[in-house]
Order: sequence, then structure tokens, then C-alpha cells
Amino acid sequence: MSVIVWWLVTAVMVAAHSASAGSAGVVESYWEVENQFRSPDCTEGVVIAINGTFPGPTIYANAGDTVIIHVKNKLSTENVVIHWHGIRQNGTPWSDGAAGVTQCPINPGETFTYKFTVDKAGTHFYHGHYGMQRSAGLYGMMVVRSPKETLHYDEFNLLLSDWWHLSSTLQELSLSSKPMRWIGEPQSLLINGRGQFDCSQAGYFNEGGLKECNFTKDDPCAPTTLRVEPNKVYRLRIASTTSLASLNLAVEGHQLEVVEADGNYVAPFTVGDIDIYSGETYSVLLRTHNPSPPRKYWISVGVRGRKPNTPQALTVLHYAGASESERLPFPPRETPRWDDFNRSKNFSKKIFAAKGYPPPPEKSNAQLFLLNTQNLMEGYTKWAINNLSLSVPATPYIGSIRYGLPLEYLTFPGPEIIENYDINHPPVNPNTTVSSGIYNLTMGMVVDVILQNSNVLKGEISEVHPWHLHGHDFWVLGYGEGKFQPGVDDKRYNLTNAPLRNTVALYPYGWTALRFVTDNPGVWFFHCHIEPHLHMGMGVVFAEGVDQIAKMNIPREALGCGSTREMFMNQGRH
Amino acid sequence: MSVIVWWLVTAVMVAAHSASAGSAGVVESYWEVENQFRSPDCTEGVVIAINGTFPGPTIYANAGDTVIIHVKNKLSTENVVIHWHGIRQNGTPWSDGAAGVTQCPINPGETFTYKFTVDKAGTHFYHGHYGMQRSAGLYGMMVVRSPKETLHYDEFNLLLSDWWHLSSTLQELSLSSKPMRWIGEPQSLLINGRGQFDCSQAGYFNEGGLKECNFTKDDPCAPTTLRVEPNKVYRLRIASTTSLASLNLAVEGHQLEVVEADGNYVAPFTVGDIDIYSGETYSVLLRTHNPSPPRKYWISVGVRGRKPNTPQALTVLHYAGASESERLPFPPRETPRWDDFNRSKNFSKKIFAAKGYPPPPEKSNAQLFLLNTQNLMEGYTKWAINNLSLSVPATPYIGSIRYGLPLEYLTFPGPEIIENYDINHPPVNPNTTVSSGIYNLTMGMVVDVILQNSNVLKGEISEVHPWHLHGHDFWVLGYGEGKFQPGVDDKRYNLTNAPLRNTVALYPYGWTALRFVTDNPGVWFFHCHIEPHLHMGMGVVFAEGVDQIAKMNIPREALGCGSTREMFMNQGRH
Repeated sequence: MSVIVWWLVTAVMVAAHSASAGSAGVVESYWEVENQFRSPDCTEGVVIAINGTFPGPTIYANAGDTVIIHVKNKLSTENVVIHWHGIRQNGTPWSDGAAGVTQCPINPGETFTYKFTVDKAGTHFYHGHYGMQRSAGLYGMMVVRSPKETLHYDEFNLLLSDWWHLSSTLQELSLSSKPMRWIGEPQSLLINGRGQFDCSQAGYFNEGGLKECNFTKDDPCAPTTLRVEPNKVYRLRIASTTSLASLNLAVEGHQLEVVEADGNYVAPFTVGDIDIYSGETYSVLLRTHNPSPPRKYWISVGVRGRKPNTPQALTVLHYAGASESERLPFPPRETPRWDDFNRSKNFSKKIFAAKGYPPPPEKSNAQLFLLNTQNLMEGYTKWAINNLSLSVPATPYIGSIRYGLPLEYLTFPGPEIIENYDINHPPVNPNTTVSSGIYNLTMGMVVDVILQNSNVLKGEISEVHPWHLHGHDFWVLGYGEGKFQPGVDDKRYNLTNAPLRNTVALYPYGWTALRFVTDNPGVWFFHCHIEPHLHMGMGVVFAEGVDQIAKMNIPREALGCGSTREMFMNQGRH
Repeated sequence: MSVIVWWLVTAVMVAAHSASAGSAGVVESYWEVENQFRSPDCTEGVVIAINGTFPGPTIYANAGDTVIIHVKNKLSTENVVIHWHGIRQNGTPWSDGAAGVTQCPINPGETFTYKFTVDKAGTHFYHGHYGMQRSAGLYGMMVVRSPKETLHYDEFNLLLSDWWHLSSTLQELSLSSKPMRWIGEPQSLLINGRGQFDCSQAGYFNEGGLKECNFTKDDPCAPTTLRVEPNKVYRLRIASTTSLASLNLAVEGHQLEVVEADGNYVAPFTVGDIDIYSGETYSVLLRTHNPSPPRKYWISVGVRGRKPNTPQALTVLHYAGASESERLPFPPRETPRWDDFNRSKNFSKKIFAAKGYPPPPEKSNAQLFLLNTQNLMEGYTKWAINNLSLSVPATPYIGSIRYGLPLEYLTFPGPEIIENYDINHPPVNPNTTVSSGIYNLTMGMVVDVILQNSNVLKGEISEVHPWHLHGHDFWVLGYGEGKFQPGVDDKRYNLTNAPLRNTVALYPYGWTALRFVTDNPGVWFFHCHIEPHLHMGMGVVFAEGVDQIAKMNIPREALGCGSTREMFMNQGRH
């Protein structure tokens, strides 16, 4: 208990980018979500657009503001939700936008209003969280600023995504087929919704054997150039909403100073490039120099962590006065080798909390081991956690808890779930079970989660999984190789300047440990942010403060499906 | 009033294929609806399958039975409904399966139970009625038999459909785009869900310049052969659930005796081929002869009414003893010229009610003129009726009426809506309005509907529209050329042996008149059965017996969306 009090006291000290109550405003928007024909990579496909734009409009708000978004579903037959990635939804868990977890999906023709407070400054984004609609292009940036914050620079937003020519419906069906049909690597990478398929802007260097792209500056796939002045500092706000790809971003001839990760300041450090996993955001400072004559530099985004089959996304850092038409003199930076995981881990391990952030509580009350495995279920390929593959029910968990409807709570496994498992080879017993069970967390706990990676079903392979937690930031306590060793590895946790994140990578054959405090009643999804993996069951759900949820005044519009709808309708019978 | 009484008295005389109450049974099925990869035309695509089958399972029931179908939606993000085409849903209008009209669409993961009585024998089918899901392959046959019926023969079911390689989602988006992108003609025609793309089984005759199809008998696209004995009578139950195509069916070397249309017996007549529009069903008797040696004959289905760009669907009438491997000696019958509308009208005009059927009431109480036009709305292409393009609301009409929620009722236009319109040229003022307004019909009325065709937006073209009425059979009073002339054309109505149908063709530049009695309280869709046309607004809705609907005990599961859901949830607030 004293741990908690101490933590809470420390927490209020981190006010650098928190809002004062007096200045709070309201940011309100009316959105219409619909399919549109677009050519994000110069090849026509269909995107889920918001108010006719793809990606969706960028939300700008100040810390402390109330954001109100009225989302009208104008799709023909598909439901929809929107998740506000990085927003902790303190007091408004029904606005988290996770279908089946915190709300019912919005039916065609209907409107759902999201209303939440953005309590601190940071770089966030939003995206669909139903089926694989994120992969269909339903996403956009969300930038929360604060007049108090110290990093006042000219800014650029870079929203990174990957793009498939197969519709999200077909991707889902492929992954759910027996045998599973793997969707392969994305056709293109997009920067702010723009990319080029099967060609490279740097093709004249014969980059990757690709021909030079042939688009005009008015094409919807033409990249947005970053136009800069010499000798200035720019803040690049970078978010990755990829469906599958882990990315690396580099700016030719420039260093990047990392200052923010997932909406929290980090102790600044300078690198030549950054790795960014799906679900992560970074702010990096880019200091321009003074090239003479003024010239252009490549900004390049390439695939990491999986054997890439997708060209780099390229855009241009354009110094004022540089030629508009002249080609760049040098090829873009090569993306680091995809399987150089040590390089990736080194980057991850450079990230520490900025000064003034509270360290994690010194001890935890509970340890939750989450063994990540790839499995089979009656011939279907699944991802499973502790041998259960998640299937989100038709009735949102938050509604079932609020109204005391039947729900299965899972028991916390002991460390033997990892000890007894051979993580280095394909599973001996590959079978799994589908489950809708969830974990029950009482309030005021300090929870450690140990994510343990393992070998996939076939071959000697282990994949990267970026895990994202809704409703919380967590401290990243450490990463390790092989099996987590209780009593050994936990002794080496970083309890001094562990960074606060909402997404963290689990590296191949390794473990990642994180800690958070259960101070936010709600039902929170915790899942691999790779869309196909989540679709195949790679997630868990935390019911946090069940007693508090049972007293919540949840807007009924969030619960108009499944058993809660049935219950309400029977209550109203007359 | 006496007209009605007379009609009701006559109606009970038509008992040849009605059920006796004592023998009524229950036909109950549990269905799971999901996307599946299939190759209906030897090319892989995605179909909406039911319990893993495409087309869905054939429902067999006896007249008087109660049919109970529990439909579980296992699609990932799309809602679904199923309409029971030809079933009048007397007393169960909420089971009609028209999304937004008689029920809310079923959400993924949820189950809706349809329960209705099949009151008379006949050939029917069922299909999706949400978005353009019928075009995605959500359909199957429904055969209602009666021990009392006289036509006891060995039977074959032939469910005819058309098939696109563009998904129904992309078809919808194409049609809803600005400017509209026409989806073109189907890639294939299917018989019982099987067809062949870009080839012909009769290709060795160089039929239509197509190569011969190359499939094995185990391929899912291999046709189901109709195996017959000599000198027998077979009943072919034929239904067309095409999205777009009007069809013609012929059996090489055989005549067809038409005996049933849309679930009603007709005065038998013999033809060499039949035209069948989307939404229509026929039973034809096929008398085999005794070919020596035994041989095979083509059954061919081709496109009528639109300039075809789709090969004939072919299957084989296989006499017992004929060679399995030998090719057929003659090419299939050529489909009649697509634009020989006189030939089509001649076929329509051969259809009269069988003896014993009641003639229509002699006079009507109301005339509803429905002017069919193609229009523009802010650059979007629409179809409109009386200059209103239908947009079905998120709250089903039946729920709005039941609970007195706001609803717009349209006034019946006078004949001047036709008199003042130039049907022979593109519209002078092409603009239309989108409307959710409906027509209010009181009980006990005899309603005449006069469908008036006209020229489309561009060029000198008028299209065929097969109009389908839910909840009723109607008498087809007559067809005519040009503008309907009140006081002239209505004098020539067939009031003696007008056939009862639920679907009727409106021919280019002409009119079609029909009559029905408002004896079935409910909300009934009346629309062009061409899926793209309905998607573009070509329909009207009849609220029949608003006072009766307001007293109905509608299952609340049918109303769990939109304003009715909101109302129930507020009633239940505590």
C-alpha cells in the first residue's frame, strides 16, 4: 500500500506536460466513416476513409482537453469502432474503442460518440479495432500539445503504415482458413498514407533492382516532401500503425535525437536511425545543417524483423532553395539487416525515462506470465497465450462485468508455465483452445507481466511481437534472452529510470518484463499489435477493478449488442 | 367491401396445394453464415456460405409446416439477414428478413431466429437482403410440397445465379461512387452454384469463340448432370436469384410445360424455352423421350434483356445408358437475341392462373403510379420512383411503426406523374432526392400498382426491371407499351385468369399493372430485384395495416438497432 501512495505522490510531480484544469477546452468533430477508392501506392484499392480523407484527419488537442468525436458509420454492411491509441481513458473506459471489449461495434447508419480527456501531451494515433479494419486504412494521427511543454519546434507528423492489395476481408478470411493462408509481406509502405508500389523514387540508382517510380506531384501517392530551413530544429512526430511490418526510419545525412516514446518523454539520445514497431510512437528532433548549395536528402522507411519483400518508403527532406526537379545525388540509407535483432535490442535498451518521471514501484504484488506460442486448433493456425487463443465475445466484457453477466476469469499461471515449456523448438503438443476468458486485476495492485517468446509451429523461427496495453502506460523493466528466470532476471529489473510506454517489443526467443499499477478501472485489451496475430488470437484482456466497473455509468449506446442488449430490452418490456 | 368478401370466399376454394392444419410439422435448422473461399466458376473467389455449403442448403417443407431457422452470423465484420423469397409471412412480418424494413441486421457473433409458416406448396428460394450480399452468393432453394398436390414427379432443382469476380463490397462501392462505376456484366452464370468462367463446355463447337472448359468431374465448378430415364415426366423447379442478369433456359431437343410460377400454379402451356427474371421461380415439366442409342442433351442458360457479355451456363440432361465421356453431338440451343423484347413479352403473356384460382377483385380502391426513372443526385447515379430514391433507414420501419417513432409517409401521386413525364427521352431535369418515406396502405384495400418505365439518363435506352413484392402474391393485370393511359388501359385488364405472382417484369418503355388486397399487416418491400438497382434506390415500402402493426408482438431481437434499441434501453434505465 505504501508503494502505491509513494508512486501516486511521485506521479503528480511529472507535471511538465500535464494540463492545468483551468485551461481545458473541447475538441469536437463529426466523422463519417466510409469505403472509398484510393491509390495509396499509385495502385487503386479501397480504403476506409474518414470525412473523405485518408489517412483520417489529424486530431490536435491540448493536454486537459475533452475530445468528442461523433463517429457515423457509413459503410454498407460492416460495423466499425475507433480506438484512441495511447489515451488512457481514465474514467471513460467505454470510449477506448475496442470492439467486444469496451463497446459494441457501431452499425451502419448509426453514430457513436467518443468522449474522453487527453490528460497529458504526447504523440498518439487512432485506428480501427474491429476485424482487421486497421489494415484497411482506418487510422490517423492524434497530437496532444501543452503550452507548458519545453519542446517547442516546428513539427512534422509522419504516420507510417503498410499496405496490402488484398482487402482486409480477404486477409481475415485467408488467416482464418484451414489450412491458414499466410497473407505475405505488404505490397507497399506508406508515409502519411502515400507510397509507391513496385518501384522506387531512388530507382535510378537501381535500388533493390526496382525501376524508378513514375508519378506526378499531384498524384495521391506522391510523397509529401518535408521542407526545411537550414540550422533549425524540427520535431518529427512518428507513429507506426502498420498491420504487420516492423520498421526502421532514417534520414540521410542527419542524426535523430529521440525525446519521446509513446507519449512519454525519454532521456534524449541520438541515433542514426530508429526502429519503430506497430503501436509505437516517437518524437525525434532533427537538427538541420546548412548544405551549400541547398540540397535534398532521403527519408527512408524499411522493414525490420521479418524477411522483407517490400520496397523502402521514401520521402524527401527538402532544404529551402534546393532544386525542385533535380534528382537526389546519393541513394537512400540502406535499412539495417532485417534479422539483426541485436541492433534492434540495442535501440530498445537506449530508451530511459526522462528526468522527473516516477520510477516504477519497487515491488510488485502479482506476476503474470504470458507464454506466447503459435498453435493449431483443428487444423486452423492460431496464436495463443498460455495455451489459450483469444476469441472476443459478441457482448463487450465491460457490459458483462457491469451487469453481472456470466464471464470466465482465468487463473494466473505460475512460473512453471514457462519453466516447463521448450521455447527453442516447435511445440511438442501444438494444439490450443479458443477462449473468451479474461484476467481479473483488483485495484491498487502492482502487476508485473512477463512476456515469454517461443518457437513457432514449424522451423527454427521465433517472431517479434510488439505488445500494446490499453488504458495504461507501463514501465519496461527489462528484456532478456531465452527463458525468463524467476529470482534471477527479476533481480536485474531497471527500477530507476525504466521508461513508460504503452507498447513494447518481445524479441525472438526472449522475454520482456513490464510493470503497471492498477489505478484505472476498466477493461483493457493487452495484445500483439500485429493485426494478423491479434486476429489469430494473440491477446489477453484485463478486467481492472471489477467492483468499480459494476458501479459505472456506462453509456448504454456502448452496450447495444449481445447479452447486454437482450437484458436491456427485456427490462424495458411492458 | 363486398369485393373483398367475395374474394376471400373464392380464395379458400384454392385448396389444391394448401395445408390441412392437422398435418403441420416443424422444419428446424441451425445455420452458420460465413465467408469461404470457393471456385464457383473454376476461378477462386469468396462466397457467403451456409454451414459450409454454397449455395446454402435446400429447405424442404410441407405446406402448413412451421419453418424455424436459427441464423448465426459468423462473418467477421459484416451484419447479415436472410429473406424468404415467396413466403408471405402472414402474421410474422418480422421474419421477412429485409434489413431496415422488417428487422435489424444480425451482428457478427449473434443469432437471429426466423420462424414462419409456409402456408402453401410452391417453389421458392431465400437470399441475403442486406447491402448486396445476395451478389456474394448468400442464397439457396426452398421447396414446399403438399401431399395433396397433383404434380407428383421426380424433381430437379435448378437455382440460377450470376457471378462476379468483383466482391459485393467493391460492387457496392463502385455503384455508390461519383461518378458511378458500372459493374458490367457478370463473369459467369451459375446453375446450382456451378459455372465456368471464360470457357464453354461446348467450346469444341467454337461456341461464341470460347475454348472448351477444362475441369474434372470432382471440381467444385463441374456441373451437376441431370440424369433421366426415358419416357418419364420430370418436374424442374427453377429459381433465378441473379444479381443482374435476366435469363433464358432451354433444353436441347425437349419442350417445357410451364405449370407453376412464383409458387402458384398456372394454366399449363408448352414452350421451347423460358425467360426467367431475377426473383422469379417456375416449375416446368420435362417429358423425356426414348433416344436410341441413349444420349445427352444440353441444358443452356443465357442472358436476355441486356447486351450479354457472359457465356451460357451449360449442364447436361443425361439419359440412362448414355456415354459418360463422349461429347455431345450438337451445340447447345442459342439464347434468343437479348433485345427481342417482343419474344419476352409473348412468354409473359402466356402465363395465366390455373383453374380454381380466384380472379382479382373486380375493382380497386386505390391506384398507385410508380414512375421508374434513372437520375442524378449531386453527381451520384440513382434509380428513383416518383422522383424519390429509396434509402432504407438504420431503424427498421416495422419497429418505428410499432412504437410510434417518427416516419415520413408519402402521398399517392395522381396519374399526372406519368402524364407529365416524357418517358421516351433522357430526363429533362435528371435530379432526384433520397428519401426514406413509405406508402401507407390501410387494411382491406384493393390496390392497383401501375409501374411505368422510362428512358435512362443517357442515350435512347430503357431497361427491364423485375419488380418483387414481399408479403403478397399479386395478380398481373396487364402489360402495355408506352405510357399507361388511365381510363383506357385499365379497361383492358385481365380480370378473369390473371396469374398470381410475387415478381413481374416491367419492360422497356412500357407499363405493368398489378393488383393485390391488403390482407397481411406488415411492412413490405416492393423493389426492383436487380441488386444494383435496389442498391441505387429502386424500391418503395408499403406499411400495411399501421394500426395492426402498432399492436403486434414483435420479437425484440428484431428491433435491437437504431431508435428502437435506444428506446428500449431508455425504458429499461434504472
